[in-house]
Amino acid sequence: MVDVIGNFSEKISGKRSLFLLVIATTDVSLIPGITIAGATEELTLFTPAADAEFLVLGKCKVINSVPVTPTGIPTPAIITKASLSLLNIPKLVVDAGSKIKPNIPYISLNGEPGKDIRKRSLDPITAERIIENGITLGNELSKNFELLVIGESIAAGTTTAMATLLGLGYDAIDKVSSASPENPKEIKRKVVLEAIKDLPSNFIDKISKLADPMLLGVAGITVGFKGNVLLAGGTQMTAASAIIKEINKKKMNDIGIGTTRWIINDKSSDIISLSKEVGVNLSYVNLDFSASKFDGLKAYERGYVKEGVGAGGSSLLATLNGITEANILKRIEEIYEEIRV
Amino acid sequence: MVDVIGNFSEKISGKRSLFLLVIATTDVSLIPGITIAGATEELTLFTPAADAEFLVLGKCKVINSVPVTPTGIPTPAIITKASLSLLNIPKLVVDAGSKIKPNIPYISLNGEPGKDIRKRSLDPITAERIIENGITLGNELSKNFELLVIGESIAAGTTTAMATLLGLGYDAIDKVSSASPENPKEIKRKVVLEAIKDLPSNFIDKISKLADPMLLGVAGITVGFKGNVLLAGGTQMTAASAIIKEINKKKMNDIGIGTTRWIINDKSSDIISLSKEVGVNLSYVNLDFSASKFDGLKAYERGYVKEGVGAGGSSLLATLNGITEANILKRIEEIYEEIRV
Repeated sequence: MVDVIGNFSEKISGKRSLFLLVIATTDVSLIPGITIAGATEELTLFTPAADAEFLVLGKCKVINSVPVTPTGIPTPAIITKASLSLLNIPKLVVDAGSKIKPNIPYISLNGEPGKDIRKRSLDPITAERIIENGITLGNELSKNFELLVIGESIAAGTTTAMATLLGLGYDAIDKVSSASPENPKEIKRKVVLEAIKDLPSNFIDKISKLADPMLLGVAGITVGFKGNVLLAGGTQMTAASAIIKEINKKKMNDIGIGTTRWIINDKSSDIISLSKEVGVNLSYVNLDFSASKFDGLKAYERGYVKEGVGAGGSSLLATLNGITEANILKRIEEIYEEIRV
Repeated sequence: MVDVIGNFSEKISGKRSLFLLVIATTDVSLIPGITIAGATEELTLFTPAADAEFLVLGKCKVINSVPVTPTGIPTPAIITKASLSLLNIPKLVVDAGSKIKPNIPYISLNGEPGKDIRKRSLDPITAERIIENGITLGNELSKNFELLVIGESIAAGTTTAMATLLGLGYDAIDKVSSASPENPKEIKRKVVLEAIKDLPSNFIDKISKLADPMLLGVAGITVGFKGNVLLAGGTQMTAASAIIKEINKKKMNDIGIGTTRWIINDKSSDIISLSKEVGVNLSYVNLDFSASKFDGLKAYERGYVKEGVGAGGSSLLATLNGITEANILKRIEEIYEEIRV
């Protein structure tokens, strides 16, 4: 585990913790070539629900097997599942607005799926409702838990994250990552630049135009929670942090992003500069799959997938609580062995 | 606090606790005269969502004021709200199948609203899904909590409870209670006797025909939870216990019903005989509203409302943790003062 910005990791070990997976969909994932978080474009709308089901049940119901890229590389949910099973902390799924609902118990924030941001992601009333319900939930969870670890699953979420960051005044062009080793920057940039044209000036109007429901749910829960929050994700979590900062600047002291080495080392994106700009703590976990016996996992070392479903943050928390990277990898391989078809 | 059957209360003080409110609707509440849990028949479908909102937010969104009987006597949610605020334990709402959803964060079990039991409450696949999702949820919550307190809100739930108990072979005719001092036994009996005609013999077929979604959700969560469960409710919780017993008889050692003095003393129902028949622990709390300065609360002493939304169990847990009945009443009156129009 390595702290890159701040020393957030010292605040979060040994705490009574809950893992939340916040899921949502955005119609941006249907734009050809923008994401590989799903075997086909249509399947990208199933990926969040399938990730949630796999995390909770160890199998998927909305699709026949675990989510994979078009070339069959498995979801990072296996990293999260391995880490949480070693930590033995509870996990709950939060739906901030998904077209496909998981067939497991999940917490609804009464959200709506995000539409294409070139027109408008959400109406402002829905955006506010997602944030408010998130605040209510975070607040209630503070009565028992000391630390929330919040992961996300949404296909094309880096595009909506870049749009949100730009909309809030940050220099984010080409700095968000991708689940692909060939970050489709041109497509993303084109979509984002169209989305931020003629932007309203009001905060809620801006984020309801640009942000996906996941970002709003994560921000609301974090603002409502009275304690530390580990934002378990990559560059998308800098956009969530930027929203949090607009709602309650003081909260920034209590939050940090926990991600993977693959995101930190990614040359096609820049989480360090984004985190500095927003002013959020950043740490990462040193997971390394190069010695794995499975090609599907080795592919992570070639830039596939990199992060998602809370993989970096949950494995980081595991290492902070005394579990070695080697033991995490061993558990990941056991789980991978079970799900391979 | 008094144990009537077993000594369950000694098992549950000082435990890390979570309160769950399981809500659902049944079309049985639309049968004229069968329930007063709502100002009109149509409003009985709004009562569970409104109870949930009041408990979490202190105000209602789906209707303009807190749920009341046709003569304006307030929901027992005020007792629960007072007790939980004194205990300072977290509360979450679980929707097992409601026509009207609350506008707050809630856990979905992917259920469906119950239909009229004279035809069929739920299809068997939905009934099984509610139970299975309940088991998954209960299991996950065991990773942190030591005690679950489960309350319910569903209008006409005593009728579906009586039908379920009869269907499972118990002598329950005329033994379930009512929110009214004039228990409408004739109507209930007529509906139930029609519902249990030509009953299938298989367990899932039986309960999907007769039980409301709340009963299935409560049973599933309880079976999945590895720890003690306080079923916070009246005669309906004997029906939940009967379902639990069919799924996992061993679980009966870990559960108990916690209810109010008004239910125990109710001459129009018989929770003691039902609990003995099913073989479930039973305790009650000695709340007394006769000295209250508010007529709406004094009405509880005349047989109105009596129980619901976890009122008995949550106040019982408060007394077990050293909070006096007098202090609970004081807090209830403070809350009542705020909500009176």
